[in-house]
Parts: sequence; C-alpha cells; structure tokens
Amino acid sequence: SLVAGCDVGSLTTKAVIMRNGRVAGALVIPSGPRPAESAAEAMERLCAEMNIAVGDIKCCVGTGYGRESIPFIDTAVSEISCHGKGARWLVPSARTVIDIGGQDCKVIRIDGEGNIVKFVTNDKCASGTGRFLDVMAKVMNIDASRLGTLGATSNAPVTFPSTCTVWAQADVIKHINARCPPEDICAGINTAMANRVSMLANALKVENDICMTGGVAKNEGVVNALSRILGRRIKRTRRADPQLTGALGAALFAGDRV
Amino acid sequence: SLVAGCDVGSLTTKAVIMRNGRVAGALVIPSGPRPAESAAEAMERLCAEMNIAVGDIKCCVGTGYGRESIPFIDTAVSEISCHGKGARWLVPSARTVIDIGGQDCKVIRIDGEGNIVKFVTNDKCASGTGRFLDVMAKVMNIDASRLGTLGATSNAPVTFPSTCTVWAQADVIKHINARCPPEDICAGINTAMANRVSMLANALKVENDICMTGGVAKNEGVVNALSRILGRRIKRTRRADPQLTGALGAALFAGDRV
Ligand code: SF4
Repeated sequence: SLVAGCDVGSLTTKAVIMRNGRVAGALVIPSGPRPAESAAEAMERLCAEMNIAVGDIKCCVGTGYGRESIPFIDTAVSEISCHGKGARWLVPSARTVIDIGGQDCKVIRIDGEGNIVKFVTNDKCASGTGRFLDVMAKVMNIDASRLGTLGATSNAPVTFPSTCTVWAQADVIKHINARCPPEDICAGINTAMANRVSMLANALKVENDICMTGGVAKNEGVVNALSRILGRRIKRTRRADPQLTGALGAALFAGDRV
Repeated sequence: SLVAGCDVGSLTTKAVIMRNGRVAGALVIPSGPRPAESAAEAMERLCAEMNIAVGDIKCCVGTGYGRESIPFIDTAVSEISCHGKGARWLVPSARTVIDIGGQDCKVIRIDGEGNIVKFVTNDKCASGTGRFLDVMAKVMNIDASRLGTLGATSNAPVTFPSTCTVWAQADVIKHINARCPPEDICAGINTAMANRVSMLANALKVENDICMTGGVAKNEGVVNALSRILGRRIKRTRRADPQLTGALGAALFAGDRV
C-alpha cells in the first residue's frame, strides 16, 4: 500500500511516497510563501509523475516548519523525530545524526530504534548552515555544489580567524583580491563550515556511527573536514538523497500508522 | 606642551593632539594595510593641518590593534584602557562605557578615576557592531548615518526574529519587497542593533552613568533604542567626536607621562 511524507521547509518542500516499505518516488520543489500550497503542489506533482491518484495514498504525515498548516495530512510529526526516523532507516547503525539544511543545523542522538535521545539545533546563526556555503559560493562566483570538488584539490587551505559568515565573507574577498588559488579558498570555506558544525556536535557528545543528512551532506569537502575534526568516520547513504531524510521519516511514520 | 594619541583601528586611524589638557586638533583617516604607515600618515597630516612640527610633540601614545607596530610612539596602551580613560574625560560621571566600532563592541565598567573594573567584548559576531548597520544601510540604499534620523519618524517599527546579520539582511529585503515604509524598516534595524548590544551589556551588569562612544554613538536611533531597552539614560558628549575616544584616552595617557 502507498504512504507519503511531506516536509515543508523554509527553502524547499520535499515529498516521498513509499510502497511496501520502499521508496517509490520522491521530489524536491522550492517552497512558496504558503506552506499548505507548497505541500499540495509537491504531492500533486509527485503523484502525477508516478501516475497515481492522490486518493490512493493511505496515510500522509507532514513535517517541517509549515506542518501545522497542511490541511490534507493525517497527522504532523516534529522535524527532529522525522530526521531521526529517516536517518535510522538510511543508516541502521547510526546513533548520531548531523543534519545541515539551508537555514539550520541539527545534531540528534538516536537509539537503536531511531527514537530521539537528545538534540541540539542552531537556527540563530547563519554560520554552520547551508547559507554560509551559499554566501561564500556567491562571492567565489561558483555554484555551492562545486565547493567540495574544488576544495578537494587544495594543498594549502586558507584559514579564517572568525567563523562568522559576515567576517569570513570579507576574508574570502581579501583572498580573491590577493590572487589566492580558488581551491585553497574553497578548502578553507569547507573547513570553516565543518569547524562551526563540530562546535554544535561537541555540545552534545557525539556517538558512533555518525550519519550526515540534509543538503550539505552532498558536499564531500564539508563531510571530510567534519570527519577529520571529529576524529570519526561519517556514513553517508546512497539509499536516498540526504535532503529527503525528513520527508522519508514522515513517510515511515505514515507506514507505521496503516 | 603638546602630547598626542594615535588609535590605529582595522577600518580607521584616529589621531588627537592635546595642548595643556585641551583637544587642540583631531583627525580620522581610513586605515591602510600597514598600521605603522596609517599612524605616520595620520600624525603627519594632523601636524601639517595644525601647522606644528611632529618634533614639537613631547609624548605620543599608541593604541588600537596595530599599536605594537608603530615605531614613533613612546609607549602603547591597550584599547580598553584608552577607551576608559577617554570616556572618563568626556563624561566624568561615567561608570559604564559602551563602545561600538566598525568591527567590534565593548562594554567597559570604570571607576571614578577611569580605571578598568571589568569589561566584555564582541569581536566574533558581526551583529551588534557597526558592520551590522553598514550591511543594512547598503540593502536600504542609504548612508548608514541616515538610519537614525529616518528611523526616528517611524510609528510602526518592524521586528526581526533573529539578531544574526545574515538573517536580518534577508528580512530587510523581504520588507523592502513588501513595500514596507523605509522609516519602519530603519527603526527596526536600530532596535535589532540595540537588542544585540544590550545582550552584551547585560552580561556585565551595567552601572550609571552610561556613556556611549565609538562611531555608532552618532546614530541617535541606536542610542535611543538602547536607552529604552536598558531602562537607563545614556550620556553622549559634545566635547569631542565619540569616534575619537580611544585616541583621546591615548593622548591623556601621554599627558600623564610628561
Ligand atoms: S556570528 Fe555572524 S553569522 Fe553568526 S549570528 Fe553573528 S552575524 Fe550571524
């Protein structure tokens, strides 16, 4: 039977449809100003793509900041719970989930069943969120997705005295003007990002295994730098796009209900 | 006799020359990449303007981040000490000095003689520093010096959910696009700035009287908002430009030595 999860974030809305415990379809669209409309659009487009009727979905769980205003869902579950649930499904050995989204960063400790033990979040400071990378990529005049591969070729990464997005941006401009090789600046950006995230992670006391989710998990430069700083291996998964973890967890909760 | 103080900051270099305990001349120039050169330029230009010879200055004290590299000074004194000394001279009843510069913010408690009792600084986060106002003014397409007067005419200031420079900047853009009156946005910016500074001030426990120094002390919107938030009157002075307080304190230390 079909179940769905819908995660309305401030920047993107994600929908996942599962059939008999497997991901049958998924979709990411930009969020509009009204969460209910973004959720409806995501579900309708995904159903159309998969050639199924919205009415065929037995249960739909909503999550994300706009979850309370989605009329068609059966229930709403917090983002933290959905991320824990989704991460546990992606990496069954995961006990710590580091989720970096466009506007926040969460570090979640889960038990063997994917239940939340403890968590810390940062949604106050832009550093350590996807926005930090977006700001730096814009100054570098490249796409944020290229920061990882470009930085990987550096032998002499620059260092930033401050983790603040504003001060680091000014430093990047200085390095560009001083004709510093772009790969060295990119590597420095990834390390600065990882430093800021590790501060949050260390506030919680990390346990193995670590699983990284959210859009930034696709940036191997940040993942590698974070792994080095924490002194631990970080598991990623090919089972699903790491950006979908919240929606996936919501769909898993929907599956539990039918 | 003539004594001088020179304050080399990251953005501007300030020089003050005093004659028999009074300010005889002062100057602010943008800082160059080398502190020693900025200091020399400031002193030479000020002496030329005042039509005196550099050699006529009996003692010169340096302060600011570049103070250790100025060759011609007699001694270097920390910024905090110079700000305390300068503020005490400007407002003799001052026991708390709130200094907001372009890249940092300091709250200093002084005793009746201007000696430092305790201080807290923020040079890690751009919020609560002059940069916050500069970033917002740029988005508003006005000069930062106009934020105060423009905001003063508002009846319905906007509020910002986050004090982060990056998130507040995004909010300002949203308000502009939503055709919110500029004065309401400016008033909101001044209040957000004051909120961030009050967090720092409250970490120290403020004592009366409060004196505000540094370039941002010229923004009456921030001064008024801060006064409202702290529930206390803030004294400013017409005795000298508040941006000169550090250099003034340095010159006073020079006076003590002759
Ligand atoms: S440190 Fe920088 S990015 Fe973080 S809250 Fe302050 S201004 Fe924002």
